[in-house]
Amino acid sequence: MFSGAQISLYPMADDFVGVILGALGALDPWRDKLRIETDDISTLLVGPPEVLFPAMRDLFVAAARSGKHCVLSATISRGCPGEPDDPICRSDALGGPVGPLGPRKDAAIAAVHNAAATGQPAAAQFSLYVMGTDDHMDEIYGCIDFLKQSGVYERSKHFCTKLRGDAGAIFSALDEAFCRFGPGAGHVTLDVTVSANSPSAV
Amino acid sequence: MFSGAQISLYPMADDFVGVILGALGALDPWRDKLRIETDDISTLLVGPPEVLFPAMRDLFVAAARSGKHCVLSATISRGCPGEPDDPICRSDALGGPVGPLGPRKDAAIAAVHNAAATGQPAAAQFSLYVMGTDDHMDEIYGCIDFLKQSGVYERSKHFCTKLRGDAGAIFSALDEAFCRFGPGAGHVTLDVTVSANSPSAV
Repeated sequence: MFSGAQISLYPMADDFVGVILGALGALDPWRDKLRIETDDISTLLVGPPEVLFPAMRDLFVAAARSGKHCVLSATISRGCPGEPDDPICRSDALGGPVGPLGPRKDAAIAAVHNAAATGQPAAAQFSLYVMGTDDHMDEIYGCIDFLKQSGVYERSKHFCTKLRGDAGAIFSALDEAFCRFGPGAGHVTLDVTVSANSPSAV
Repeated sequence: MFSGAQISLYPMADDFVGVILGALGALDPWRDKLRIETDDISTLLVGPPEVLFPAMRDLFVAAARSGKHCVLSATISRGCPGEPDDPICRSDALGGPVGPLGPRKDAAIAAVHNAAATGQPAAAQFSLYVMGTDDHMDEIYGCIDFLKQSGVYERSKHFCTKLRGDAGAIFSALDEAFCRFGPGAGHVTLDVTVSANSPSAV
């Protein structure tokens, strides 16, 4: 199944290019497991979820360590019928049949609770979209219920759910939302914003 | 039908707060037609499409006039079954039955060609998501076909379509994609990024 992300990193600083270039080294451990292409709007990462989410986490944390207000914005997708398959995306995390919501929620909660801490506080919000099925709201409500028990839930907002906590737990929650909700072989996307060092943060 | 957006403005500048505050006046002509709520991640705009898209355009153009590299990121939604209806969202642009794709594409192309120019060049990319139906890819391919004839099409990318042109035409194209594709009363969302003054732009 084809999976990947279009990601953008926004350091709110005159030296935004320096902050971005300084953070890119954090992708080095992941580079041989990803296909990466950059233009003036975003960087494409093609690869399986178990590489995508830790790679985004490490890039975000490296940029946030600059102390500048930094935002990572990402469009993450799996199973789009218009995308060709790619061997680099092979993953055991996706593609199987999905069972009842209850055990999936429990597994997602356990994964976030066990996520390694990064020491970097972050806020985030995201939307989960499930396509090609007429029961998409059941999956979305199931995901929201998981988030409420994940330890990083802040509140529901119109069109999205807001999270706050260690960046390690937040990217784990995004990974779990992406892999465990919606049909295993279905078209599922996330619209994600992760923020650090905002002067407006409460 | 409930419609609105969660928007964030990212000026890549030490004085990002000043750029944002300096641009907010551009929303003044639209404020009495919108419900607006802000937190540390995004600003919620609730209102009909014919207000949302011009308001976002004016905010983005005002920020871009600073000359700084600025990005507007938005999650735009209509018809989400989990959202309550709101009288402020009433619109003739949504909710009716949809006819065949051909005339809808033609109307969308004409609207973008007739959009008022702002004088502000921009690049953008976005994804259209249509939920609760099993023919969502037909609507997405129809929208991409419209974009290719819109005058602001740059290229297809994985997971999204990239646009380039005057900000007036770009926000018009986003408005048309949002209103004319997917069921009239259906759950449709856009995941949007609009950028100006990027040092990486070709």
